[in-house]
Amino acid sequence: MNDLLEDFPILKEMINDEKLVYLDNAATTQKPKQVLDTIRYYYEHDNANVHRGVHTLAERATKQYEQVREKVVNFIGGNDPHEVVYTKGTTEALNWVAAGYGATHVHAGDEIVVSYMEHHSNIVPWQQLAAKVGAKLKYITLTADGQLDLESAKHVITDKTVLVSLCHASNVLGVVNPIKEVAQLAHQHGAIMVVDGAQAVPHMRVNVQKLGADFYAFSGHKMLGPTGIGVLWGKKELLAGMRPLEFGGEMIANVGLYHTDFKEPPYKFEGGTQNIAGVVGLGAAIDYLTEVGLDNVTAHEKSLSKYVLPKLQKIPGIEIYGPSDPDIRTGVLSFNLTGIHPHDLASALDMDGVAVRAGHHCAQPLMKYLGVGATARASFYLYNTKADADLFINAILEAKEFFSNGSF
Amino acid sequence: MNDLLEDFPILKEMINDEKLVYLDNAATTQKPKQVLDTIRYYYEHDNANVHRGVHTLAERATKQYEQVREKVVNFIGGNDPHEVVYTKGTTEALNWVAAGYGATHVHAGDEIVVSYMEHHSNIVPWQQLAAKVGAKLKYITLTADGQLDLESAKHVITDKTVLVSLCHASNVLGVVNPIKEVAQLAHQHGAIMVVDGAQAVPHMRVNVQKLGADFYAFSGHKMLGPTGIGVLWGKKELLAGMRPLEFGGEMIANVGLYHTDFKEPPYKFEGGTQNIAGVVGLGAAIDYLTEVGLDNVTAHEKSLSKYVLPKLQKIPGIEIYGPSDPDIRTGVLSFNLTGIHPHDLASALDMDGVAVRAGHHCAQPLMKYLGVGATARASFYLYNTKADADLFINAILEAKEFFSNGSF
Repeated sequence: MNDLLEDFPILKEMINDEKLVYLDNAATTQKPKQVLDTIRYYYEHDNANVHRGVHTLAERATKQYEQVREKVVNFIGGNDPHEVVYTKGTTEALNWVAAGYGATHVHAGDEIVVSYMEHHSNIVPWQQLAAKVGAKLKYITLTADGQLDLESAKHVITDKTVLVSLCHASNVLGVVNPIKEVAQLAHQHGAIMVVDGAQAVPHMRVNVQKLGADFYAFSGHKMLGPTGIGVLWGKKELLAGMRPLEFGGEMIANVGLYHTDFKEPPYKFEGGTQNIAGVVGLGAAIDYLTEVGLDNVTAHEKSLSKYVLPKLQKIPGIEIYGPSDPDIRTGVLSFNLTGIHPHDLASALDMDGVAVRAGHHCAQPLMKYLGVGATARASFYLYNTKADADLFINAILEAKEFFSNGSF
Repeated sequence: MNDLLEDFPILKEMINDEKLVYLDNAATTQKPKQVLDTIRYYYEHDNANVHRGVHTLAERATKQYEQVREKVVNFIGGNDPHEVVYTKGTTEALNWVAAGYGATHVHAGDEIVVSYMEHHSNIVPWQQLAAKVGAKLKYITLTADGQLDLESAKHVITDKTVLVSLCHASNVLGVVNPIKEVAQLAHQHGAIMVVDGAQAVPHMRVNVQKLGADFYAFSGHKMLGPTGIGVLWGKKELLAGMRPLEFGGEMIANVGLYHTDFKEPPYKFEGGTQNIAGVVGLGAAIDYLTEVGLDNVTAHEKSLSKYVLPKLQKIPGIEIYGPSDPDIRTGVLSFNLTGIHPHDLASALDMDGVAVRAGHHCAQPLMKYLGVGATARASFYLYNTKADADLFINAILEAKEFFSNGSF
């Protein structure tokens, strides 16, 4: 995919006199100039508020805003654009399900099921919901190599379960979860399946219907799109029964002094002026990924993972979290080096222009489960190359040398 | 301000073979190339997720994200950047005050006071809150010429009032409300003052402290900034007692399996990846407006209003809502023409390239109060000219002619 590099001007950035090697894609991705051009074109030619005007710009803006709903639904294998709700991102989407759907459909004594590998955005909203309605929050355990334990899922999900919420792919462990199997399990027990797809949609072909998802959330900025835009996809009948959380202009059918009637989904959730340019940019990101081909993205990341993982495994004192088989990994690699704090490691790599993340990755329960306070994390994407992987490995070796000897 | 025109490429757009005359600024404003350049530069040189990384790009992004908080607080006369919470826009900000502050500070029997000129985003959240906690929602009436009636305010605001929420400037009537006087009244009765500043901050020098506001909300996209970003300014002690509504990454201090501790404001409100590029763009919009000078913006709009209002008033069959004295008006002009539906009028103006809005302007209670179903609305901003005003008046005269005779 080396021919894509020209599309990403930031990859030419020099960091501490070294060319940037951006391996923090699980946090946010870089944007191709096609996405930036589309946003700019929108602002320079079509910018207006949507759904509210009869003038030409308002019609152009509205048309684009609604067309992206169709792009989204095609991209994730849905079949109705009205099942696509625009949100700020995955976090807002999951919170809306918890507070808008959960608060009226989860009751005292009910059980909500998540796993130990969830991001805080897929834990804290459910904690809040459980505390509010008197429900119980339960955790599916992981296998020794960091995969979701389906045997545990079979024990944890019971007839008391009303809602199961799992990440499609882990932001720490580099695993893809068997959502289809868990969704079947959930449905057998009469529970709904909520999926945090933030780390999946950018990297693999997703089909929400084949997965059996009832709600599916993801973010634009992790898939080459702009910040401040995400999607909550939900089954029509569930969105109809979900309460809006933000009240204001354009989500209403009729406002009286003391009572208001809301529009149908998705509009009842989109009160106030939305991130219209963000929606347009998300559409451009979908176009870009579609043109590259999601299968090619997956294959590219897998080949990078197969290339770099054995090299990483060979480094003395390294501990890698998640499966050791590169065939069942995504491009997310979390690891620690004996005797070096991951923050120090990340700072040392930055001296070589290599951007990795260090910390708890918004997954403190997983960190505790793994028995660590923090990890370093390198996450690859479609514009990364084998050369990037080599620079990454070399930078680790240099850092290791430095921290052993006290000098570079 | 004609020298600004070059900064706004969209103003050269041809609409139905006529040069665009954009008079829908109360809905959303156009963006100067300085704002678009800043956003693009951010994406091409600094883009990373904030607060989570030790690498160079993450530090650059975080620095800009936090620096804009300082720009905002200087811009609106606050004194502490930690009193600035980033939101999607005004609607989200007001909803957060209602659901996050109101839900724990407003109780059964308490009274919430708004006015008849509020936008739905400053009505529906309070209706929801009132219904939830058993509080009463009360409305301040307007004077015959469409100003807030301070005598009514003195009757409506009582010792039962716990919260008063008013727009600083009306999105329909072209009036600026006496927030300072109402805030004093509210405070005398122990109530807090919430201000919807969406139509004020872009157009006049605002000082939240001098106004006596306790919460103040506004949107970036109505002040030359990008869509999807807004601000909730709130007094530190009130933000401290306000519950976050969105739970996830980076708003937490510590996440256990069943319990989570939150960070201090503003961070506890900013769960998940925020609209980082939107924040950067908002900063650029503040820089632009600061360089032009808010006093100059106000003076320019007032001079346009003084120029166009007498011409508009002279058109037979016109009804203009709000004060007839141009000295006490903003650049927002709502009106109807006898015998022509405002939607038809707006469509006719669009044929001449003139973009105005028609409808209820998300203010159905005000429409009922005025005894109309809808109005046309022209809203001027800093890039509009007297030539725009002439084209606007001519387009109305042509439309009037067409609808009288059945041909142009």
